[in-house]
Amino acid sequence: MEHIKGAGVCAPLGFSASSAVADVKGNGKGKRDMALLYSEVPFNAAAVFTSNKFCAAPVIHGRELIGKKGKFSAIVVNSGNANACTGEKGLAACGEITKAFAAELDVDEKAVLISSTGVIGVQLPVGKMTAKAGELIDELDSGNSHEFAEAIMTTDAVKKEYAVLVETQNGAYVVAGAAKGAGMIAPSMATMLAFITTDAAVKTDALQEALSHAMTDSFNSVTVDGDMSTNDTVFLFANGMSGIIPNREEFFEAVKTVCVELAKMIVRDGEGATKFCTFKVVNAATDEDAKKCAFAVANSPLVKTMLHGEDPNWGRIFATVGACGIQCRQDNVDLYFENLKYAENGIIIDYALEPQAAAIMKKKDIEITVDLKEGSASKTVYTCDFTKEYISINADYRS
Amino acid sequence: MEHIKGAGVCAPLGFSASSAVADVKGNGKGKRDMALLYSEVPFNAAAVFTSNKFCAAPVIHGRELIGKKGKFSAIVVNSGNANACTGEKGLAACGEITKAFAAELDVDEKAVLISSTGVIGVQLPVGKMTAKAGELIDELDSGNSHEFAEAIMTTDAVKKEYAVLVETQNGAYVVAGAAKGAGMIAPSMATMLAFITTDAAVKTDALQEALSHAMTDSFNSVTVDGDMSTNDTVFLFANGMSGIIPNREEFFEAVKTVCVELAKMIVRDGEGATKFCTFKVVNAATDEDAKKCAFAVANSPLVKTMLHGEDPNWGRIFATVGACGIQCRQDNVDLYFENLKYAENGIIIDYALEPQAAAIMKKKDIEITVDLKEGSASKTVYTCDFTKEYISINADYRS
Repeated sequence: MEHIKGAGVCAPLGFSASSAVADVKGNGKGKRDMALLYSEVPFNAAAVFTSNKFCAAPVIHGRELIGKKGKFSAIVVNSGNANACTGEKGLAACGEITKAFAAELDVDEKAVLISSTGVIGVQLPVGKMTAKAGELIDELDSGNSHEFAEAIMTTDAVKKEYAVLVETQNGAYVVAGAAKGAGMIAPSMATMLAFITTDAAVKTDALQEALSHAMTDSFNSVTVDGDMSTNDTVFLFANGMSGIIPNREEFFEAVKTVCVELAKMIVRDGEGATKFCTFKVVNAATDEDAKKCAFAVANSPLVKTMLHGEDPNWGRIFATVGACGIQCRQDNVDLYFENLKYAENGIIIDYALEPQAAAIMKKKDIEITVDLKEGSASKTVYTCDFTKEYISINADYRS
Repeated sequence: MEHIKGAGVCAPLGFSASSAVADVKGNGKGKRDMALLYSEVPFNAAAVFTSNKFCAAPVIHGRELIGKKGKFSAIVVNSGNANACTGEKGLAACGEITKAFAAELDVDEKAVLISSTGVIGVQLPVGKMTAKAGELIDELDSGNSHEFAEAIMTTDAVKKEYAVLVETQNGAYVVAGAAKGAGMIAPSMATMLAFITTDAAVKTDALQEALSHAMTDSFNSVTVDGDMSTNDTVFLFANGMSGIIPNREEFFEAVKTVCVELAKMIVRDGEGATKFCTFKVVNAATDEDAKKCAFAVANSPLVKTMLHGEDPNWGRIFATVGACGIQCRQDNVDLYFENLKYAENGIIIDYALEPQAAAIMKKKDIEITVDLKEGSASKTVYTCDFTKEYISINADYRS
């Protein structure tokens, strides 16, 4: 498996994309806010949706469609409006838009998916969006990966794309993806949308397994600020155009790799973030404990501001570990900054080590490990720091 | 029951206090960082301690002493150092300091308590602190409530004190208190110390009941940023000097009133906070649900930045309600800004109401209610906004 630099969602054979300015928000700012992803050969689709009980209309609509396990031709995506908390009218809008695109593409209505992100509680401007169908279809091009990645952005500062090439005895296939998301990220799933494409030939059930397998160590391991969105979705589309029926483990690995890289990009682009932290909990009594502890620390505002302050403040981490409701003993926990063991059995080893710990905290990428010495379960999460920029972005953004 | 304006912890008969500069942190800044609270007539004591498994040495020490249900004469308090994550040496320091003060006061070692707040992971400067015993005892005065309230502060911007006078047929008694705390506040208990004093005559067991009863709607209803401290403690001391054996309900109410007022002061003084929000969840299916939902919303960084941005962004609140793992239906939840019903059954009622909602959000004190319409359980929590000031304070403060 090798990374295809600079490639995006259209890297696999048969996929093309386009974007347009529909002015979804109605503020005339000219940002590209609609995107279309299409495959000339219909694809199988799998998806993982948010577990938020107040899920958006496109999630309700998508869950039902994906559940039919049929073939799909395209997905329409818009930013600027999440179509959440919009009731029956919002759900109907999903149908109207996909129907309009299906008609223009000359495919069945059930072959078109829709995904939305943005402001909650406002109805979609259906007319404006269906009016863009013609333009979006005309503009479809396999060279438009970046346009797609850009049009799906909301508060993102950077596009997020990744692609890998997998060589096999019978030829090669590609797994690629684009994602958006920076704010409102949470333990269970980052608030974000991710679109993974591949030209491998994989059936729907296997696709769903590959995606579920990829979630744990990717999107379910990131956090920016502890909130779970109404719209989180990860899609996986396979059109088989490479002609390769992939080896199961290898395919799972490729999908996971793309998801992990996209998830890390989301964290690095955390609203206002200046630090990327890999936080590991090892030797927890149970998987549940490892996960609970890892996220409690990664989500802790005090720990996140500590990262920002570049302060090796192990005390805050310990206090959070002790507060999160897991099996642990205060005289039995060790803490490491990278490979530097800093605290052992609940006490600092040597104050003379502080300059070394402080030097590690000054890096952009930091790794911290807590060894609970209670069992053998572990969990790694990725997090970023809390900065004043985060406050600015969210106090002013209506989402 | 009436509020005694400007009064503090020495308001009840027989209590006196003092403070001193011990330079606990060793930075020579001259802040008063030690305090002594004393009663000429020994008092019964009750306490509620943090549930953090990594509790500080003074918590371990205090839990044991309080559990003996004996009589106490004084409590020594220091700021600048939490004596947490300090192992056996930290526990021994508690004994050395209380022993030194007991000797100077000519009372039994077990009649002196100790409480600490501040930096985690550093040993107490025992010598510096015992050296202040003489001065602190000499300076004891019933007029020193404010000095006490000031000396226990760490990142607090203001002193927190409250007192009530309860008139009965047989005379009056007073319940008063001082508290400190602003950062690291969490669902279970605010990171803070609170010292409630009274001259009512109440036995230890009844004192413990009164305190437990007071906790739910006071300290267990506040949050600043979701972390639980290693040192949280609320003390209740009763020396009986008023000669009044109080009516049970009336006494419980008085203790609760003082605790609620102190808890609100802690929230209002949330690090960098500019808003005070009363968030109510009503008609939840269970008490557990009501509590989980109320704290999920009150602790949500996105909701807290929304408060700061003065934006009636009901969508974020709804998204958090849906994500927190309770029984709820998205087409069955109502939301109010004060008495203004803004969303009904998951949808905004009328966009024309936005200016009214925005006007409410501009106030310093805001009230938001979510009606789940699933049962009859409710929970009210107090919270504040997240500001850039919070980041500044915590990125630079070693605690």
